Amino acid sequence: MLNLMRKVIVTLVLLVGISSSAQSTQADASMLKKMYTETLTNGKSYQWLDYLSNKIGARLAGSEGDRKAVAWGKAELEKLGLDRVWLQEVTVPHWVRGAQEEAFINTNYGKIPVNICALGGSIATPDGGLTAEVIEVKSLKEVEELGAKVKGKIVFYNRPMPMERIETFGAYGASVDQRVDGAAIAGKYGAVGTIVRSMNMRIDKVPHTGTMRYGDTPEDQKIPSAAISTNGAEILSQLLSTDGAEVTFHFKQHCKNLPDTKSYNVIGELKGSEFPDEIMVVGGHLDSWDLGDGSHDDGAGIVQSMEVMRLFKQFVKRPKRTLRVVLFANEEFGLSGGTAYAALAKEKKENHIVALESDSGGFTPRGFGFTCNDANFEQILTWKPLFEPYFVHLFKRGGGGADIGPLKTADNVLLGLKPDSQRYFDYHHTAIDTFDKVNERELALGAGTMASILYLFDTYGVR
Amino acid sequence: MLNLMRKVIVTLVLLVGISSSAQSTQADASMLKKMYTETLTNGKSYQWLDYLSNKIGARLAGSEGDRKAVAWGKAELEKLGLDRVWLQEVTVPHWVRGAQEEAFINTNYGKIPVNICALGGSIATPDGGLTAEVIEVKSLKEVEELGAKVKGKIVFYNRPMPMERIETFGAYGASVDQRVDGAAIAGKYGAVGTIVRSMNMRIDKVPHTGTMRYGDTPEDQKIPSAAISTNGAEILSQLLSTDGAEVTFHFKQHCKNLPDTKSYNVIGELKGSEFPDEIMVVGGHLDSWDLGDGSHDDGAGIVQSMEVMRLFKQFVKRPKRTLRVVLFANEEFGLSGGTAYAALAKEKKENHIVALESDSGGFTPRGFGFTCNDANFEQILTWKPLFEPYFVHLFKRGGGGADIGPLKTADNVLLGLKPDSQRYFDYHHTAIDTFDKVNERELALGAGTMASILYLFDTYGVR
Repeated sequence: MLNLMRKVIVTLVLLVGISSSAQSTQADASMLKKMYTETLTNGKSYQWLDYLSNKIGARLAGSEGDRKAVAWGKAELEKLGLDRVWLQEVTVPHWVRGAQEEAFINTNYGKIPVNICALGGSIATPDGGLTAEVIEVKSLKEVEELGAKVKGKIVFYNRPMPMERIETFGAYGASVDQRVDGAAIAGKYGAVGTIVRSMNMRIDKVPHTGTMRYGDTPEDQKIPSAAISTNGAEILSQLLSTDGAEVTFHFKQHCKNLPDTKSYNVIGELKGSEFPDEIMVVGGHLDSWDLGDGSHDDGAGIVQSMEVMRLFKQFVKRPKRTLRVVLFANEEFGLSGGTAYAALAKEKKENHIVALESDSGGFTPRGFGFTCNDANFEQILTWKPLFEPYFVHLFKRGGGGADIGPLKTADNVLLGLKPDSQRYFDYHHTAIDTFDKVNERELALGAGTMASILYLFDTYGVR
Repeated sequence: MLNLMRKVIVTLVLLVGISSSAQSTQADASMLKKMYTETLTNGKSYQWLDYLSNKIGARLAGSEGDRKAVAWGKAELEKLGLDRVWLQEVTVPHWVRGAQEEAFINTNYGKIPVNICALGGSIATPDGGLTAEVIEVKSLKEVEELGAKVKGKIVFYNRPMPMERIETFGAYGASVDQRVDGAAIAGKYGAVGTIVRSMNMRIDKVPHTGTMRYGDTPEDQKIPSAAISTNGAEILSQLLSTDGAEVTFHFKQHCKNLPDTKSYNVIGELKGSEFPDEIMVVGGHLDSWDLGDGSHDDGAGIVQSMEVMRLFKQFVKRPKRTLRVVLFANEEFGLSGGTAYAALAKEKKENHIVALESDSGGFTPRGFGFTCNDANFEQILTWKPLFEPYFVHLFKRGGGGADIGPLKTADNVLLGLKPDSQRYFDYHHTAIDTFDKVNERELALGAGTMASILYLFDTYGVR
């Protein structure tokens, strides 16, 4: 009953709070409507993405595409008439894939070609490729248990993403250790290569790249690592468990790690009129993997962040707080841009009160994940009804984004846009993450949602 | 303050209600989890849709595809081991498109081909096609005002769907009068044909068909009517407003209305163990337009409804109330199946307590629209938290579906699944409403959502 009374009191307090803020809510609702309407009827996100994806394309850190994307991002931000646009130099690793990989399953029944792609950071196979017996495992732990039994073999990590997870990023988190650390562990026990089932929630022929790391693996224990399509993984697994089948796996890849090089965070700013020292950041990452054109990962986040600036310039005109857009360099391959941005902010003692990242694809926005203190989250929850007309309903604790992560302080708010996640891993890190997979309205709704919450942070600040 | 006290009392009542039903909620949550997990990991919807879309394809009422779909639907339901599967004969109209249409804009600059398609129910043009001057309008009212000025001309209805609407079905509702009644009104004033901007929220070259009606138009005032792609509409409109451009429009179509024919509602039933006379219906429509393969409209609703039966059979085993699946005949062209089903139900004095329709595409489910009394809606709202883990959040008054509409009584509950609507009108009634546009997980989540709410209606009944 005590608990019940407490709930009643909380309800009373909330009701009083709501009625007293009725007027500002009306103005807020009207601003949100303007922003959403503009971006749906006259938005620039899709047009920008068309250019970034189709004219520039893939832009892995250190590549020619990366350089072009930096120049394009700077030029487009300059056209928006912000107060300031600049570049921050960032040191980035430089990995290149080289010629297309090849792979097949050798069996006593014949030779079956399958699709693979080298994982980012992996070394090449020997020139003629690598052929070995295969040992299939479901986890890193299993390799530790097998120990010396993997010696001379290719370790095949084949634990699927758990299909029953509703949020597919959760399913990714539950599987990606195989890709990231699989080679380091297998190499320690003398395996000669690893093949990892693609991080994909459907069965198809498209392999998914992504980072792997050798950690402190000595040079002579480093082994090449590739992703195999889910279709290829299913075939290989079936053959391995077929009585009488004699199976080896062959793959060839030509990737290499070149010396570090330079890239840039592209930054634009609207100076705050009342609290210029309170900085709000919005961003995504400008680099992409080298396959496809990175339309969802993270072209979408880039153009949505740029659209936020355009909407602010058009409707808010002069924000109370300083609003910065950051097109982060090299997220995919070690977070160089996010780390460098936060380091400089710390050095300059800048006060970042809010940082918003969009890096989960350009799908229909469902809400945000917030990393913040209780007082801020309480305030944020009072804004939730404003988003109901736009079907934006998820306001959850936790999350933010990789690039903004290093900006966390005790009192600021990090938040990540949460789009619908069902299709994301169909495309993620593949040759089919392309412009045609993005729907203009879904992309625009994301931009409207981002601008809307930043407008509220600009208006009410943080606690 | 009185108002405030009322809210507090409501809160108290709700809190007491919630704690008393805690136990059943746990069982309910567990059942929902089972159903969602099964359909995501081992569901049949997508496989069924593959067959319906790719092996049968388009299935306009009265066509060969329609006959095949009926036979397939019956055979698949029989495999599920339901208590009874049967066909209900339905009289349906029979319209055929004939050879591919052709159209171009004749100008003094040259001849520009554009994509059109005849609207369902339209008559053909004369054999050699129809060429006439064009008068562009934005509304039916504008034609009424122009009156005799449209005589001898082709009326071009070019009011776009309002892009700022978040729910795209609302945007459709705000525009579709042009397609449905445009020809009847223009014909009355002596126009020779109508061209209607496709009901599409993006600019592309794909024309969208759909029904039109002549109503009580005398035979000699009936004029042919076609949809033009949004790209074609933009070009035509620009040329019409270009100084010095001399523009006529030419189109040719070969469609005709044949005598009525037969089709069938395909029905399957699990008999209720406690309240067999309380009938719950779940369904979609088995027919489609003749372009594309009708994967979203309404193949998705068909296979989701079948999946509901499979999930019930597997987990609920014997429902308390009678659960029926109805694959309705001919929704697109006059609602023959829904009308016939309701008429027979009335004749037999059957008590339909709940009817659930899925006919808004196979996209990520967001919730339901309910047409019901207050007592039922109150009960339904207590179920909403059970759907939170599945990101199903929209529980709104209003809606249901065309096919189940005639089943409405004062006390029963009609509900329609509400999937995310952003992409629906990219495909609706076109040659690109095809299987590859459906995502397996999004489709399956819809089926899980439908099964879940029907499980709750089965458990708790209606009020």
